[in-house]
Amino acid sequence: MSDVLSKDSYPFSWPVRVYYEDTDTGGVVYYANYLKFYERARTEALRHIGFQQEALKNEDNLLFVVSSVQADYKRPAVLDDELTVFVRIAKMARTYLVFEQKIVKEIDGKETLLNAATVKVACVQGDSYRPKAWPDAVSERFETLIADNSQ
Amino acid sequence: MSDVLSKDSYPFSWPVRVYYEDTDTGGVVYYANYLKFYERARTEALRHIGFQQEALKNEDNLLFVVSSVQADYKRPAVLDDELTVFVRIAKMARTYLVFEQKIVKEIDGKETLLNAATVKVACVQGDSYRPKAWPDAVSERFETLIADNSQ
Amino acid sequence: MSDVLSKDSYPFSWPVRVYYEDTDTGGVVYYANYLKFYERARTEALRHIGFQQEALKNEDNLLFVVSSVQADYKRPAVLDDELTVFVRIAKMARTYLVFEQKIVKEIDGKETLLNAATVKVACVQGDSYRPKAWPDAVSERFETLIADNSQ
Amino acid sequence: MSDVLSKDSYPFSWPVRVYYEDTDTGGVVYYANYLKFYERARTEALRHIGFQQEALKNEDNLLFVVSSVQADYKRPAVLDDELTVFVRIAKMARTYLVFEQKIVKEIDGKETLLNAATVKVACVQGDSYRPKAWPDAVSERFETLIADNSQ
Repeated sequence: MSDVLSKDSYPFSWPVRVYYEDTDTGGVVYYANYLKFYERARTEALRHIGFQQEALKNEDNLLFVVSSVQADYKRPAVLDDELTVFVRIAKMARTYLVFEQKIVKEIDGKETLLNAATVKVACVQGDSYRPKAWPDAVSERFETLIADNSQ
Repeated sequence: MSDVLSKDSYPFSWPVRVYYEDTDTGGVVYYANYLKFYERARTEALRHIGFQQEALKNEDNLLFVVSSVQADYKRPAVLDDELTVFVRIAKMARTYLVFEQKIVKEIDGKETLLNAATVKVACVQGDSYRPKAWPDAVSERFETLIADNSQ
Repeated sequence: MSDVLSKDSYPFSWPVRVYYEDTDTGGVVYYANYLKFYERARTEALRHIGFQQEALKNEDNLLFVVSSVQADYKRPAVLDDELTVFVRIAKMARTYLVFEQKIVKEIDGKETLLNAATVKVACVQGDSYRPKAWPDAVSERFETLIADNSQ
Repeated sequence: MSDVLSKDSYPFSWPVRVYYEDTDTGGVVYYANYLKFYERARTEALRHIGFQQEALKNEDNLLFVVSSVQADYKRPAVLDDELTVFVRIAKMARTYLVFEQKIVKEIDGKETLLNAATVKVACVQGDSYRPKAWPDAVSERFETLIADNSQ
């Protein structure tokens, strides 16, 4: 991982296999579908630290809503690829999180960066879609996904 | 239309353009995506006779739920194709409809059948998902989508 | 598994998690997306017995093409569901295979059938899309996916 | 249009209807699917000025490849919405284009901005994926999609 992701620590990663459904007639993964891969990994990262988005919605009337995405398409993924999607929280504010994510593939024994994204996710009230602060108990758990830059 | 669809009358049709999102690395439209084209045409057929599914749900607590699909893949559609999706109601029962649908493309001035499907759609109550009879006012309007086989 | 799938033997199964991308505003998995789940499982079944579809295409100029799908929607899957997709070859002909597949979810400790499908997959030549017999070496391996009904 | 898009001129727009396939269980359009809407509009803008991407690929061995996307999610689109997707070329460089795009919906007779994106599209050679300058004939036509800021 060191070439691509050196110095950064990504506390969570998730494997994604590329199927026909993900590709397009250009022979590569369709550009919108990387956003699906990113969301799967964010969802699994949240599940890993104990959140089901469905439960947050039903119990706390809280929704996670993507408010912006910046994605860089470095190299294309193709059918049958085994990708790894990395997740870390780069910033935790009162009513939103900034995720940094990367999609990496092993090529000739070397981790190669295919795609990188910054995704801002807001916490909003279920019905009004108004910004809302995370409950303290929630924020505490988010901290385990924060990149450790302490060295 | 006569070659492909002779004798049958399809009271409604809807144009669909094929974009990158619809294709796969095999160079053709991905097999699940024809079901999207079929649903767009059914939705527009219902809108054409005065239904918004959203309104049926909110006002009458009725949902249209697909209960079975049979699809035959005759010839593939490709990027940039201009397709026509045909819709007719082949059977109207108390709690379900059977749609017959076809996807056709003009090749060398001749309508060519690419895909054909039979889709059974049930009427269910919003929460329980139990079968429910259509209101009379609804059934009457469905009749305009029934194929005219009277000749 | 016995309740749902008794007597039948499904030589292969594949887990699928339901994410936001799979659902629709009706609160359930969008009907076309079950076909994605079915294909992931078929692809993994083929990989399990030693095939990469990409390799078959490049080395033998052979394509697997879906020629028909029959799907029954019994009960809906929802966000966060952990599904199991079963695969078996019900019929192996000279130029096509018939897959039987099921999607099952554990509810209250009991395997519950959500969806069942029969998918006919033809073997065609890469460029002409003409039917072609599988090579013997290929058919032999398919046999390990045939349901064992011998008892 | 003036409220939202004042001063800017968007030389091209394309209507998009929201169907079930576009939505998710949150009741809104799934965040990756806005990228599909953006691409449909870019494709139609290119078609409008005389390009088929398929022809560029086959005749000139040129591919348009998205190299970055920045999207801002202002307000969600929902089922049955009639959206308008705007397109303009904000920058035309030797080997890439920068598109600015917006998705707008009429609410109470007023155009309301739902989503805005900046999409950088590179011109690459078909096989090598190396950057390549657009042919002069191509660039000239792109100019009709450049925003007119001359007033």
